[in-house]
Amino acid sequence: MSSSPLFAGIELGGTKCVAILARVPDEIVARETVPTTSPEETLGALERILTRWKLEHGYSALGIASFGPVELDPESTNYGSITSTPKPGWRNADVFQRLRQAACVPAKFDTDVNGAALAEIRWGSGQGFADFAYITVGTGVGVGLIVNGLPTRGFAHCELGHIRVARLPGDAFPGSCPYHGDCVEGLAAGPSLKARVGPRLPQLQHDDPVWESVAWAIAQLCHAIVCAAAPRAIAIGGGVVENQLHLLDRVERMLAKSLNGYMQLPPGSPYIRFPALGANAGPLGAVALAMDAPK
Amino acid sequence: MSSSPLFAGIELGGTKCVAILARVPDEIVARETVPTTSPEETLGALERILTRWKLEHGYSALGIASFGPVELDPESTNYGSITSTPKPGWRNADVFQRLRQAACVPAKFDTDVNGAALAEIRWGSGQGFADFAYITVGTGVGVGLIVNGLPTRGFAHCELGHIRVARLPGDAFPGSCPYHGDCVEGLAAGPSLKARVGPRLPQLQHDDPVWESVAWAIAQLCHAIVCAAAPRAIAIGGGVVENQLHLLDRVERMLAKSLNGYMQLPPGSPYIRFPALGANAGPLGAVALAMDAPK
Repeated sequence: MSSSPLFAGIELGGTKCVAILARVPDEIVARETVPTTSPEETLGALERILTRWKLEHGYSALGIASFGPVELDPESTNYGSITSTPKPGWRNADVFQRLRQAACVPAKFDTDVNGAALAEIRWGSGQGFADFAYITVGTGVGVGLIVNGLPTRGFAHCELGHIRVARLPGDAFPGSCPYHGDCVEGLAAGPSLKARVGPRLPQLQHDDPVWESVAWAIAQLCHAIVCAAAPRAIAIGGGVVENQLHLLDRVERMLAKSLNGYMQLPPGSPYIRFPALGANAGPLGAVALAMDAPK
Repeated sequence: MSSSPLFAGIELGGTKCVAILARVPDEIVARETVPTTSPEETLGALERILTRWKLEHGYSALGIASFGPVELDPESTNYGSITSTPKPGWRNADVFQRLRQAACVPAKFDTDVNGAALAEIRWGSGQGFADFAYITVGTGVGVGLIVNGLPTRGFAHCELGHIRVARLPGDAFPGSCPYHGDCVEGLAAGPSLKARVGPRLPQLQHDDPVWESVAWAIAQLCHAIVCAAAPRAIAIGGGVVENQLHLLDRVERMLAKSLNGYMQLPPGSPYIRFPALGANAGPLGAVALAMDAPK
């Protein structure tokens, strides 16, 4: 049995939360799941898990990787809260302070995608990179952008899923983002795919023309990411791209074509890749945050 | 007379280079200008200036802020060279090694816009900010993006002027970028403005409809910058925007409208501002780099 320290991680998701107790690099000591209902109920259950683990095992730090948007400005009185979510009851829910107080150890809070990006850098598809991006294309489009080893963080966290990109010629779909219409999320996330193809969704073939539109929007997002920070690689996961290797290939080709030689992607492929941690990227992201918690 | 250390800075521009010797924060001890002709001639003249200043004054570090694109990947054998410029003779010109050897002091090399961004953070419109962006709209569109106090730098430096953005409805101008057509540079830089208005250029009024197209492209660029790194403010300079206060106002309004409440710009305005260092941003950028040179 290893004597390396234990870390607690909480992944706060839109439908469920995963609590994980891990001895890094790869021993998962405990794992529990809590449905995401009201903040009172869900955070209460997570507090009890953290308290119990503290007594039974002890752990040296806590990481919380949350769905967003969240307030990460240390100057804000709402630091550590969910902000403008449409999820009932969660707007302004104070996640960080409650869970940190229950754990009573050094703690770190960030978005789920920043956590996943850091976990992929530690253990997955971005190992050894100081500059890396993690994109999830699911119910929404989330981006974790790591620059010089740290997530981008000015007055807010990365929201690159909501940039407005050049349209694929001939694609007139108005987009499904309630804020921006045809931003990347509005063009490529699950709800947009559903709106575009309707009942064909469960039987979508790889050569369905809708993938061209989805790949285009993701490729334009990658073009912007490359121009902003030139990460060494970009990992793309999430429900829309899962098992769609053809989509990642297409995004990489479209990206190279869009950059048009002005910038050359680094040699060694693929540049656009699946995350290596799969379904564990979320909770391991929280563990990666715990490892970075200020002492 | 102050006893604080002297720094040498070289701004490498497309038409001229400025060498500056400064005692920070604000005493300029010497300043010389060299026309940008061939690398041999121009770099030779700069080497002689650096050698002479070394003997006459001494200086503790050298900063070089160069037009781009430049190779900044420390793993590349071309580190410190100009890369894909159309400027005759300058492709692959090794700028950094030559000037560093002439100066024989710790030295730092970066793009002109990253240097200007760092100078604005030290002495100008971004004082105290760890996250800040500097945009120049002139012959091209250059962006210096500072994240957590450092310029973005993966396998390349920031090239956000070359992202492809949503078009202003009704604006069918094909764009003037030889690589990307209607990227931001192709829509908003000097050559595009000239191509759009032709002989009207010298008499352009503030209410000329062309400004709507220029402001739109810059606002979309700012939208992407905000989503990528949420800088505390964005400074915009360069020949196209100089003295066009109406343009910056318009960009800020369009940016807020484009974000549509999903992200709120920080209170205290303007968020979009002129650089405070004006024409000195370039050479002072080189001095800011010198101050960050590794010992």
